[in-house]
Amino acid sequence: MKTSGGTTRTARREAMAAWTAQLQDEITRFFEGLDGGRFEEASWERQGGGGGRSRLLVDGAVFEKAGVNRALVEGILPPEAAKRLGGNVPTDITPYFFATGVSVVAHPRSPMVPTVHLNVRYFELTDADGRLHDAWYGGGTDLTPMHPFPEDARHFHRALKWACDSHDPRLYPAHKAWCDEYFRNLHRANEARGIGGVFFDHLRPTEAPFQLDAEALHAYVTSVGRALDDAYGPIVHARRDLPYSERDKALQLFRRGRYVEFNLVHDRGTIFGLQTGARTESVLMSLPPLASWPASVDHAPGSIEAELTAMLAPRDWAAEA
Amino acid sequence: MKTSGGTTRTARREAMAAWTAQLQDEITRFFEGLDGGRFEEASWERQGGGGGRSRLLVDGAVFEKAGVNRALVEGILPPEAAKRLGGNVPTDITPYFFATGVSVVAHPRSPMVPTVHLNVRYFELTDADGRLHDAWYGGGTDLTPMHPFPEDARHFHRALKWACDSHDPRLYPAHKAWCDEYFRNLHRANEARGIGGVFFDHLRPTEAPFQLDAEALHAYVTSVGRALDDAYGPIVHARRDLPYSERDKALQLFRRGRYVEFNLVHDRGTIFGLQTGARTESVLMSLPPLASWPASVDHAPGSIEAELTAMLAPRDWAAEA
Repeated sequence: MKTSGGTTRTARREAMAAWTAQLQDEITRFFEGLDGGRFEEASWERQGGGGGRSRLLVDGAVFEKAGVNRALVEGILPPEAAKRLGGNVPTDITPYFFATGVSVVAHPRSPMVPTVHLNVRYFELTDADGRLHDAWYGGGTDLTPMHPFPEDARHFHRALKWACDSHDPRLYPAHKAWCDEYFRNLHRANEARGIGGVFFDHLRPTEAPFQLDAEALHAYVTSVGRALDDAYGPIVHARRDLPYSERDKALQLFRRGRYVEFNLVHDRGTIFGLQTGARTESVLMSLPPLASWPASVDHAPGSIEAELTAMLAPRDWAAEA
Repeated sequence: MKTSGGTTRTARREAMAAWTAQLQDEITRFFEGLDGGRFEEASWERQGGGGGRSRLLVDGAVFEKAGVNRALVEGILPPEAAKRLGGNVPTDITPYFFATGVSVVAHPRSPMVPTVHLNVRYFELTDADGRLHDAWYGGGTDLTPMHPFPEDARHFHRALKWACDSHDPRLYPAHKAWCDEYFRNLHRANEARGIGGVFFDHLRPTEAPFQLDAEALHAYVTSVGRALDDAYGPIVHARRDLPYSERDKALQLFRRGRYVEFNLVHDRGTIFGLQTGARTESVLMSLPPLASWPASVDHAPGSIEAELTAMLAPRDWAAEA
């Protein structure tokens, strides 16, 4: 690993690297426990600095495809990535970046079990001498039901609210709203990808409105990184053995098509990964094993299709009785 | 239809509108003849000017999903579209545009039958008073085999070369090379979407290197618009009744996944359509009815997967004996 110039390994970076490595291990164990299957691991290196460790579970008892990936990438920030990144990118010098994160996408086989996504990441911008220009956290987790079970949306949001509230009661409402705004297919009349969750980016210590110090901010993001056990686990247990019909499966494949559209057209994490030369197979592990674009979908009132679409309109799930 | 300001209907525009309407009808008849099924038609209007007539054939004897769409859109050019458009976009005034074209994507059910795409379009840039700033043609057609039949690639390219050569023998080599360059998944180590065909954009009368006059240029683009009868028809007849295995089908679904990636991440026609407010269902009719992202694909030497991948490296198909 290079340790000179813009890619010096500070104590902070070492701590963040250990943090994402540990979160990856915890989340891997969580999914292996749920499924009974085992992840296969593949490591990759990035030209220009860093690399990743991708873990994939395929054809499990519950999950058709689940990925728990960790990346640690660093080096000169590609100009295309700089444009979309946000943050204080130095403009008069060559910008360097350091980023480490964990990304999780799980596609269950059964349409009764929702798809889940989680990501936490830490980001630094420096100059070639390693001088820090900006640093922040990003992340979140969101649920994409393939069948209309409103109680699953309520459970997921309540669990997230619980996890967030212990850090600051203003976090959940703010980051729930951000999530509702972010995961939308603008080109599909702004339809949401799922029923949301929490999402945040460019979170810095002591910054308004939350003014969490560095330790409290780190603890908050860590709680989000660990949220699936309570927020997602019980849903999987409740739904995994339910019978389903061909129509249920067709609806899942249709919703997965919209999932593909969001990830390839709009998702900033996907685009950042492809632009910065991460391993394509790892970046695109988020794509479902099978997806459909049917010529038409029956949305008759009272149908599962209509009920699921209705669930995609953002609402305050955590507050519902 | 508005006839004032930047959307005046000139004789040229009327002629181009009639041209795309006729091509759509011809191509519709061609596919109905091949399949035996019938297209369903849906018309749409665009806020801001123009609209389209989309035709979709679903669950036919040969085609799982085939679209033959015509659009005629006009009005103020959205700034996002202006950035990617190319051409001489006026910068000191509000740019208006007029565009009409026909787009065809046919996804056969059998993996033995290749997927085909064709598009021809005419484009004008004016100011609010209708003064012409630029005008050009774009288009092309390309083949995406799902099974390794090198003779199909040879046939397709020979037929295209034949259609192009009667206009100018320099056209086919130039636009074949352009096609090889264009339909590539940069994020997949620059893998080609298929075995190519011809592709061109910003073709203007009397411009170097071909210096075709307006009539000759129009005749060339029309020939491309009519190329499928000879270039694609015989392939469908030769392959439609072949038996195939589950592995053949899996390879088709895998290649279709890459097709989705190209169209959503890279294709300028798709992005232009979504940016200018065309009907999303029509723009995305190019997406296959079903596609897969398998965790891994066996590419053992001599396998159909390896042979098909090898066919994607550009070569001079038309010249092969």
